[in-house]
Amino acid sequence: MRTIDWVADGIELVDQTLLPGRLEMRRIRGLDDLIFDISRLAVRGAPALGVAGAFGVALVALQVEREGGLLGRDANGVESAGLAFVRGEAARLASARPTAVNLSWGVGEAVRALERAVDDAAGGSSPAAAVLDHALALRDRDIAACREMGVKGAQLALDLCGKKSLRAMTICNTGGLATVERGTALGVIQTLHERGALELTLALETRPLLQGARLTAWELSRFGAPHRLLVDSAGPFLLSRGAADIVFIGADRIAANGDTANKIGSFSLALAAKHSGVPFVVVAPESTVDEATPSGEHIEIEDRGAAEVTAWQGVQTAPADTEALNPAFDVTPASLITAIVTERRIIRPKKL
Amino acid sequence: MRTIDWVADGIELVDQTLLPGRLEMRRIRGLDDLIFDISRLAVRGAPALGVAGAFGVALVALQVEREGGLLGRDANGVESAGLAFVRGEAARLASARPTAVNLSWGVGEAVRALERAVDDAAGGSSPAAAVLDHALALRDRDIAACREMGVKGAQLALDLCGKKSLRAMTICNTGGLATVERGTALGVIQTLHERGALELTLALETRPLLQGARLTAWELSRFGAPHRLLVDSAGPFLLSRGAADIVFIGADRIAANGDTANKIGSFSLALAAKHSGVPFVVVAPESTVDEATPSGEHIEIEDRGAAEVTAWQGVQTAPADTEALNPAFDVTPASLITAIVTERRIIRPKKL
Repeated sequence: MRTIDWVADGIELVDQTLLPGRLEMRRIRGLDDLIFDISRLAVRGAPALGVAGAFGVALVALQVEREGGLLGRDANGVESAGLAFVRGEAARLASARPTAVNLSWGVGEAVRALERAVDDAAGGSSPAAAVLDHALALRDRDIAACREMGVKGAQLALDLCGKKSLRAMTICNTGGLATVERGTALGVIQTLHERGALELTLALETRPLLQGARLTAWELSRFGAPHRLLVDSAGPFLLSRGAADIVFIGADRIAANGDTANKIGSFSLALAAKHSGVPFVVVAPESTVDEATPSGEHIEIEDRGAAEVTAWQGVQTAPADTEALNPAFDVTPASLITAIVTERRIIRPKKL
Repeated sequence: MRTIDWVADGIELVDQTLLPGRLEMRRIRGLDDLIFDISRLAVRGAPALGVAGAFGVALVALQVEREGGLLGRDANGVESAGLAFVRGEAARLASARPTAVNLSWGVGEAVRALERAVDDAAGGSSPAAAVLDHALALRDRDIAACREMGVKGAQLALDLCGKKSLRAMTICNTGGLATVERGTALGVIQTLHERGALELTLALETRPLLQGARLTAWELSRFGAPHRLLVDSAGPFLLSRGAADIVFIGADRIAANGDTANKIGSFSLALAAKHSGVPFVVVAPESTVDEATPSGEHIEIEDRGAAEVTAWQGVQTAPADTEALNPAFDVTPASLITAIVTERRIIRPKKL
C-alpha cells in the first residue's frame, strides 16, 4: 500500500483522519481537494507532504494543458496565462501548511522542473508531462531512501545492542503513513521485524494528537509486529526498568551539530535512554539535515495553542477557559543521541 | 469547601466525575452509595479516601444504633449481631478499592475506635458516637496536616530557589480534591499563591485519567492562581528550557530510603529536574512513609490494563484490539529527590 500515489491521471491518498477505524483512499480531482486534505491532516508526515506538493503542481499543469492552455513564454520571456496560473496555484498549495518545510520544498522542486521543461521545450513536447515525471521520481526516491534507512538502521541497531532480537521504543508516527510506502524510524522497526529480529515494539501514544495510538499502532498491527501502546509518560520510566533495548525516533529538523527537533516527548525519552544506558537513534532522510541551522538553540519552537490540550475529539477535558503551553516539538541535544541514520550515512554526533 | 465532610448525620462529598463541568455535592445515605462512589472515583486521593473509610464505618454504626441494634459483646465476649454487622460492612468498604492503602487504613482506624468504645462502654454511652468522634478527629488532622505541609513546603521552596516569586510545575491532582480541604503538593502551591509568591503553575494533564486537566486546572482556577496546562511529555522539555523554578509532586508510598511511588510521569519529571538543576520536592503526609518497604525495588507497579490507554470517554483512539502497558505509577529514586515535606519534618534523602 502507498500512502500517496499517482493513479490514472490523479492523486490517491489514504485519508488518515479515518484511521484507525477505517482504511479509505481519497481520490483527489483538483487542487482545492488536495489543499483541504493537507490542512485537515488527511495526509501528513514530512516526506509524504513533499511528494504531495510535487503531485499537486503536476495535477494543475496537466489540467491547464488538457484544457488547451499554454505553459510556455513568449519571445519576450513573458509567461503565458497558463504558466502564471500554475505558479499562483503552486504558491497557494505551498502555504496550506506553512510550517511544513517539506511541502513547500516539494512544490518548489516541481515548479523548477516545469521551468526547465518550458525553457528546454522542443516542439510538441509537454512541460506538464515533464513535471509529472519529476514528481514520480521524487516519489520513487522517497521509497528507495526509506528502504535504505531501514537496512542501515536495522544493522546498526543489532550491532549497538549485541542481541539477535530487539525490543524497540518509538514515539509519534514515522511509518509508511508519514512517507510514501515505508517509514523512517518505524521503517527500521519494520525491517527488524521482517528479519525476525523484533521481539516487541513499545509505541507511545503521542499527545496531543495521538499519532502513536491512531496511526503507529494501526501500522504495527498491519505488518503483524508485536507491540504495546503506552501513555507518553510511561516511556521514560519503562526505559529505566529495562523494558526496551533501543529507542528510534524520526526528525522534523536536524541542526548542523546534530541537535534534533522532533515531536514533543522525544527529549524526555532521550534523557531516560541516556540515564538507562539504552541507545537512542534518529532516523530521517538527508533532506531533514539543515546545515543552515548551527544548533538546536536556533530552532524556533512552535506553540500550537490551547485547544489541542484542553479538549479531545470534541470532549472538553479541562475547564473551558484554561490556558495552555503546547509546544508541538522539542529539541534533543546531540549529546543525548547515539546515532543519526539517513539513506546515505550514519552520523555519530560528538559527545559534548 | 470540603471535598468530603460529615453534615447532618451523613456524608457529603464532591462528585469528581462531574468536574470540571459541574460542581455538585453528593449526599451519601448508606454504605452502598459510598462504595459505589469510591469505585467510580467520585471521591479519590489517598488522604480523602482515609477519611471516607472512617466516615463510612461511623455511618453504619450509627444506623445500627438508630434501628435499636446493639454494638457490644455479651459476658462471654461474643459479639452482638450489630457489632458483627458493622465489622462485615467495614470489610466490604475497605475492599472497594483494594490498592488504595489509605482507605483500608481509615476503615481500620474506625473499627479499632469502635472496639475501644465497646470495651470501655459505661452505661448509656454510645459506641457509634465514639466512632463518629474518631472519624471527625481524623478529618481535622488531615486539614491541619495539609495546612502545615503548605507552610513548611512554601518556606522550603523560597529558600531553595532564592527568589521571591516562583514558577512551579506539578503532576496529577494533589489538591483539596485529593484531601479534605487543602492539598499536599498543590497545597504548597496554594500557600505560595496566598503569600503573593507564586508567579505561575505549570500543570501536567496526567494521562491516562487526566486528573491534571480535569481537577488541578479547575482547583487552580478556583483559587485564582495563574496557570497553564501541558501535555505530560512537554513537562521535562520545558524544565530543560528553564520554564519552572521548582517541581512539587505528591506520593502514593515513600519507601524507607526515600524512593517515592507516585503517578506515572513523576520519574520523567524528576530526571529532567535533575538534568536542569531544578529542585524536585515531594509533599505527603507522614502516613505515606512506609518504613516496612526498604526501597523502591520492593514496590509493586500496578498495571491498570489497556482500556484506559486505547480509549477515552468512550471514544476509541487506537485499533480496538491494541494491547497496552499501563503502569499506574512509577518510582522516583531518592537520588533524584531534593526534599520530602511532611506535616512533621523535611527529609533530605541522601544523594547516592
